[in-house]
Amino acid sequence: MDEEHEISSLQERLITAMHDGDSDAASTLLPELHPAELAAAYESLPEEERAALLTLIPAESLPPFFQQLPASDAVSILGGMPDGPLANTLEEIPDDVLVDLLQEMEGFQRGHTFHLLSISRRRAARELLHYGEDTAGGRMTTAFASLQEDMTVREAIESLRRVADEAEVLSRIYVVDYEGLVLGKVRLRDLTFAEPDTRISAINDGDTRAVLASTDQEKAMRIMVKYDMLALPVLDDDGRLLGLITHDDALEIQEEESTEDLERQSGIAGDSADESYLNTPVFRHVRRRLGWIISLAFLGLISGGVIFSYQDQLSTVFALTIYLPMIVAAGGNTGGQAATMVVRAMSLGELTPGAFLRVAWKEFRVGLIMGVVLSACMVTQIYLFHPGFMKLEGALIGQFASTVGLALLMQITASTLIGAILPIGARAIKLDPAVIASPAITTIVDATGLLIYLNLARGILHLG
Amino acid sequence: MDEEHEISSLQERLITAMHDGDSDAASTLLPELHPAELAAAYESLPEEERAALLTLIPAESLPPFFQQLPASDAVSILGGMPDGPLANTLEEIPDDVLVDLLQEMEGFQRGHTFHLLSISRRRAARELLHYGEDTAGGRMTTAFASLQEDMTVREAIESLRRVADEAEVLSRIYVVDYEGLVLGKVRLRDLTFAEPDTRISAINDGDTRAVLASTDQEKAMRIMVKYDMLALPVLDDDGRLLGLITHDDALEIQEEESTEDLERQSGIAGDSADESYLNTPVFRHVRRRLGWIISLAFLGLISGGVIFSYQDQLSTVFALTIYLPMIVAAGGNTGGQAATMVVRAMSLGELTPGAFLRVAWKEFRVGLIMGVVLSACMVTQIYLFHPGFMKLEGALIGQFASTVGLALLMQITASTLIGAILPIGARAIKLDPAVIASPAITTIVDATGLLIYLNLARGILHLG
Repeated sequence: MDEEHEISSLQERLITAMHDGDSDAASTLLPELHPAELAAAYESLPEEERAALLTLIPAESLPPFFQQLPASDAVSILGGMPDGPLANTLEEIPDDVLVDLLQEMEGFQRGHTFHLLSISRRRAARELLHYGEDTAGGRMTTAFASLQEDMTVREAIESLRRVADEAEVLSRIYVVDYEGLVLGKVRLRDLTFAEPDTRISAINDGDTRAVLASTDQEKAMRIMVKYDMLALPVLDDDGRLLGLITHDDALEIQEEESTEDLERQSGIAGDSADESYLNTPVFRHVRRRLGWIISLAFLGLISGGVIFSYQDQLSTVFALTIYLPMIVAAGGNTGGQAATMVVRAMSLGELTPGAFLRVAWKEFRVGLIMGVVLSACMVTQIYLFHPGFMKLEGALIGQFASTVGLALLMQITASTLIGAILPIGARAIKLDPAVIASPAITTIVDATGLLIYLNLARGILHLG
Repeated sequence: MDEEHEISSLQERLITAMHDGDSDAASTLLPELHPAELAAAYESLPEEERAALLTLIPAESLPPFFQQLPASDAVSILGGMPDGPLANTLEEIPDDVLVDLLQEMEGFQRGHTFHLLSISRRRAARELLHYGEDTAGGRMTTAFASLQEDMTVREAIESLRRVADEAEVLSRIYVVDYEGLVLGKVRLRDLTFAEPDTRISAINDGDTRAVLASTDQEKAMRIMVKYDMLALPVLDDDGRLLGLITHDDALEIQEEESTEDLERQSGIAGDSADESYLNTPVFRHVRRRLGWIISLAFLGLISGGVIFSYQDQLSTVFALTIYLPMIVAAGGNTGGQAATMVVRAMSLGELTPGAFLRVAWKEFRVGLIMGVVLSACMVTQIYLFHPGFMKLEGALIGQFASTVGLALLMQITASTLIGAILPIGARAIKLDPAVIASPAITTIVDATGLLIYLNLARGILHLG
């Protein structure tokens, strides 16, 4: 891992130099660092050392540095820059990054920043700002090259040579007609190896797969994954080529979406933004987590009420309480597992809306088998080890074991089914399936589990 | 979404044709379908219709089809093919896909398949089989092109033209010396736009970032994300270029790793393989989920034992049971949230091992604030609404509210801290942090929450 070591060591050395207040050492390191390393180092520094590092970064290195930084940090640095250098820096930032930054800015700073842009960039930015942050239009780069069908390969290469410095992707070049409609694409290698007099129409692959600018970014990413695409064309409502989503965007979208899914499933609301865990202030953490915790706590009182209302039964055979938390938790765990499986399958686009019954049938069987196995374990355990303090005797043991076993079987089967069905139901009413997060499912099946258990106890043990 | 519509409609039309037994319609559709669509359609068909579809796919379409199929399905199809067509198909499958298939095969089929390979491919496959499935070596493609420094651009283009059909990636071409050590890379656009007599050494960017073949695939993917790389060179122990991990591999790795993280956090063990949710048999689902469920159930008996042993206290003030499930669950929920946050931050490479104290300090404050807020909510609720059936009077209400409030505060603070610390501890002893899944944390904090609550009750309410 020499290379790996070398990568991190440059970044580490810059951090150490800043900790030591050694500006000379830091300045010497800067030209060697990749912008991503510079940004990672900056992110891990405390406030004062960040400020010191900023004074060392040469003006021309700022635009790529801003591209790698979380938007909130980039915006706060931009806010402190004098107009002259700010205007120069803004000109060098690609359109899509600029729009991310504008979206992050408050009214006044946004207006001021707009004011510093050249007229053409102002127009481009204003157009991109129409698209939501999570849409294909909000993610696309507009720094792309296109070709016309009637060009020759020689003309195409000449036209690309002129824009090569600005274009982010040249590996796939889209062929458009005079109205901007996509006719297909050519690969750069096709141009490079073709005879100079070949017409573009002859090597155009005719692939017109594309998405609208309003398409959800996750959907766009799924298409790129499915078809192994290096870039995906983004169109306006009239089908004209507006921009491209590139392979690195796809990786970012996928990372964002997985983080969101993971967080939703633990009842964490809102957006992780692009700040790292440690750089997110305590109060923002609290704000994202507290809502669910409070709602679930009040919901949890229902379970308490159920137990309380079965006071008489529980007092008569207090040994019932030994198995109570286990039965309740087994429901939460199996329901959570089923929900995770189903939500993930939906995220990966595996489940069509029509699959509802197939999912329910599969999870019913999974729940039933797990219920039977766990039930058998616990019944055996009760027969073998019921200790004296439980004060169970003779015929009562059989009834007690039946109560626990049957409750467990019903609870696990029902919970597995509920865990699988609720996310599908959520999607049917246009909610994010992951919002029916596993803590919510757990809280619901807690109360149902208690009702099952305590009613069975009443019936089988002839209580109350 | 016309394009999107068109994409899915081809796939849907093939599925319908197969359902209707209309082979002619299916055959007409086949040439229009992308291999990914063909594979997706195949996956969604029942057994008999799959067999019928296979007979319709022309031999030359089989290799790209196998590349898109889950390895287990591809292997079972290959197992049913006669030797002649099988040998031809195998020759057309890229090395990295072939190795995935070989890894999936049982001993006999693997030996037979090896036997059908040409000698050179057999050697290549055997070499790749050395690397684990989850390593950079196991993921890389060996179909890449490389250049020497002393070539001219004209010579380079000529040499690339000869391998262009086989090479998977040509956008980044690595420059190696005569021993195979990486000296840097050139972009295809640099070659295309450079003067034909330019030496490669003049346009070599000198970027030698790479990973060893034994590097974990997740680490390799993280490097590609950090540096926005289109391809990442994979080296043997002597630093020689063996292959490349490409942008589409990075997307696949990221998807696999997120699925794994999501599943671990719900206590789902093992590997999701690449089969879809619906195509995974019930028993495989059960096998992956049952282990944790049984272990956690037996652990859950501890909580039951705790309640049982406080029988006298609970019988005296039975109203305590109303708040019991809520306090327990609030711990599980906050602990689960903290664990998710920390595990995700670790997955994204944000937390260095030294960050332990900073994480603990942050989560301590988050837990404390959430504890104070929720505690205040519940204390207020008790004062305002304590109903008659709870049989609480006068001074007892204050003590009761203190017990619930204090228990909630302690439980949430402790659970948040435990949820954050356990995954870090797991990594310190080389366990996958996600394995300390949220159900495990929940089960642990359940028991501690009960002990806190019932001991406080004993002390404050002067019970027992």
